Amino acid sequence: MLYFDHGATSYPKPKSVTAGALRAMESFGANPGRSGHQLALKASREIFDARETVAKFFNIKDPKQVIFTSNCTEALNLAIKGVLTKGDHVITTSMEHNSVLRPIKALENEGVENTIIQCRPDGSLPLEKVDQSIRENTKLIVLTHSSNLTGTLMPVEEVGKIARERGILFLVDAAQTAGLYPIDVEKMYIDLLAAPGHKALLGPQGTGFLYIKEDLYLKTLKEGGTGSKSQDLIQPDILPDRYESGTPNTPGIAGLKEGIRFILEKGRDNLLHHEESLVKYFLEEMKKLDFIHVYGPKDCKKQSPVIALNFRDMDSSEIAYILDSMFDMAVRPGLHCAPLAHKTIGTLEQGAVRFSFGYSTTLEDVKKAVEAIKSIGIEL
Amino acid sequence: MLYFDHGATSYPKPKSVTAGALRAMESFGANPGRSGHQLALKASREIFDARETVAKFFNIKDPKQVIFTSNCTEALNLAIKGVLTKGDHVITTSMEHNSVLRPIKALENEGVENTIIQCRPDGSLPLEKVDQSIRENTKLIVLTHSSNLTGTLMPVEEVGKIARERGILFLVDAAQTAGLYPIDVEKMYIDLLAAPGHKALLGPQGTGFLYIKEDLYLKTLKEGGTGSKSQDLIQPDILPDRYESGTPNTPGIAGLKEGIRFILEKGRDNLLHHEESLVKYFLEEMKKLDFIHVYGPKDCKKQSPVIALNFRDMDSSEIAYILDSMFDMAVRPGLHCAPLAHKTIGTLEQGAVRFSFGYSTTLEDVKKAVEAIKSIGIEL
Repeated sequence: MLYFDHGATSYPKPKSVTAGALRAMESFGANPGRSGHQLALKASREIFDARETVAKFFNIKDPKQVIFTSNCTEALNLAIKGVLTKGDHVITTSMEHNSVLRPIKALENEGVENTIIQCRPDGSLPLEKVDQSIRENTKLIVLTHSSNLTGTLMPVEEVGKIARERGILFLVDAAQTAGLYPIDVEKMYIDLLAAPGHKALLGPQGTGFLYIKEDLYLKTLKEGGTGSKSQDLIQPDILPDRYESGTPNTPGIAGLKEGIRFILEKGRDNLLHHEESLVKYFLEEMKKLDFIHVYGPKDCKKQSPVIALNFRDMDSSEIAYILDSMFDMAVRPGLHCAPLAHKTIGTLEQGAVRFSFGYSTTLEDVKKAVEAIKSIGIEL
Repeated sequence: MLYFDHGATSYPKPKSVTAGALRAMESFGANPGRSGHQLALKASREIFDARETVAKFFNIKDPKQVIFTSNCTEALNLAIKGVLTKGDHVITTSMEHNSVLRPIKALENEGVENTIIQCRPDGSLPLEKVDQSIRENTKLIVLTHSSNLTGTLMPVEEVGKIARERGILFLVDAAQTAGLYPIDVEKMYIDLLAAPGHKALLGPQGTGFLYIKEDLYLKTLKEGGTGSKSQDLIQPDILPDRYESGTPNTPGIAGLKEGIRFILEKGRDNLLHHEESLVKYFLEEMKKLDFIHVYGPKDCKKQSPVIALNFRDMDSSEIAYILDSMFDMAVRPGLHCAPLAHKTIGTLEQGAVRFSFGYSTTLEDVKKAVEAIKSIGIEL
């Protein structure tokens, strides 16, 4: 099967990733940080290494500020609910995923106000609206690095600068970019960075992390055993323990470490250029087809390797079904857990067919996708 | 290394468990429930199968009531915080793990009252105190099935009956028992059952679940993408989606399914009898040693395969270190994330050395442990 659904999760994983997860299960499958015996220590060391690897990759000074989570959604919930309290105001955009919008909407019931900035039809953010939306009680700005629907890349550094200048916390959702695009939490003024481990970071499912800026103290989402200060009935303040209760996903985290090592070996920039070239080729070919409507910036420099399109007014699920059953190609149709983004680009009814490329996608694969699209077009 | 730390996590896992996790990563590593293509469907089917397997194992009528979590701690937090609101009262015991005590203590700040029943020095629960602790605003009783420190088995069914009769919700923490002891949510009047996937259920780390009784509606801990009702900005009510946001740990869940299949193949009762016989032998041998103090019921029928002991007044960590470095044996020393349990048995200062057995522990292994303990005793 030709897999064009890297925006949902990367597949196949590099061999070293599955090998890393397997090694953790087979060679040191003890509980990290719970005992002091050799196997438990091996497991904790592996998690420490992974934490350090993540920290270095995103220019995070202290690995303890990296909190492992079960996915990006958990990281976003921890950040949003950890920061915001009754009376606070939060700013976000219409291109966000439900993992940002739904927690924010849930907080409305607790007296947290929000402003959702309406983006342009190509998904881009009118920067001036950020400044205009700031109120006296604005505590947090939440911005996706790239739309999961149109791929539109957002001006993270610019928004970060505004937030920093106005003394507002800045949370970035790097679900579509972490692992592929340069992210430097210092340079980009990022106070909180949420990312999945299993997309462009190439780790196994069941992984993710939240970076929390030093001295930023969040409310906890969960409390429990931390293996530290066990005598206390209240959650300890020590990091990362404060935000990591219970047994971690050691095999997943071990695999994530290998994912990042794979990226470093290949060169993140090389992977990015490769994927940009695929997007460029694909977009050029799509431009030639009058029955295809592409959404978003239509520019490989302005979007992550995610392309949303439709075949005239055909139902997106039907197209995806044809691609799957007749051409053995995996794409994602329908709504993409981002209802306001669909409203922004005008596809709330029709949905959209999303092609998303990854490190393992070849030009040959993309050419086959183009041919398949042309074949379907002839039948329309 | 001889591994006596099954109470922290089971190790090694059955070969079919690691193979199951690996197969999920290699053969259908797509994102379940997010797209409709073949690979995504295979992944969703695997998760559906796992959910059904869990449900059958615990006599849960509808698999949709099984919510996969990243560990037992998350399941307990979801249950406790999902049920309790300002003005409610919750009853629990002094033998609980921090994953129960800390969320309950955290809720004190939000106006949730609690009663912590003081257990007897062997960890057992004075049943009459349950009735006596019930108030008009008692909403929930939380009880561990077995202490993670002393192994003490709790009268789950009896407490469940009291709760049901008084119209109070009943949450059981099955961290030390799920997979090994018979648990029937109907027969035992369990409304909420929290369990880790990686202990006696033999699945990989990063797994766990919460069973929620039909028609019981909890507040969510996290909101986000569910792949269902994507157009809605509020979390959908559909189960299990309402409580499962973001990409699940597909390889872990696939491995968990294999763990339960392994148990069914071997026979849960056979495994239980085997482990009981190990505890019986070990306890009898310990009784002969005057320098050993064993805590808990000291009866293989009254405790799970977890034995807490101390060598006279020696620091428990020192003993564990000797066992590790000189005898290549893994045990867990110190406090066991259960401070009130240590207070109950009188080991808050000294901690305790915990031996915990599992499906792969043999009588030969336990005999070696006994010999090691004797050797250390001679040196004292």
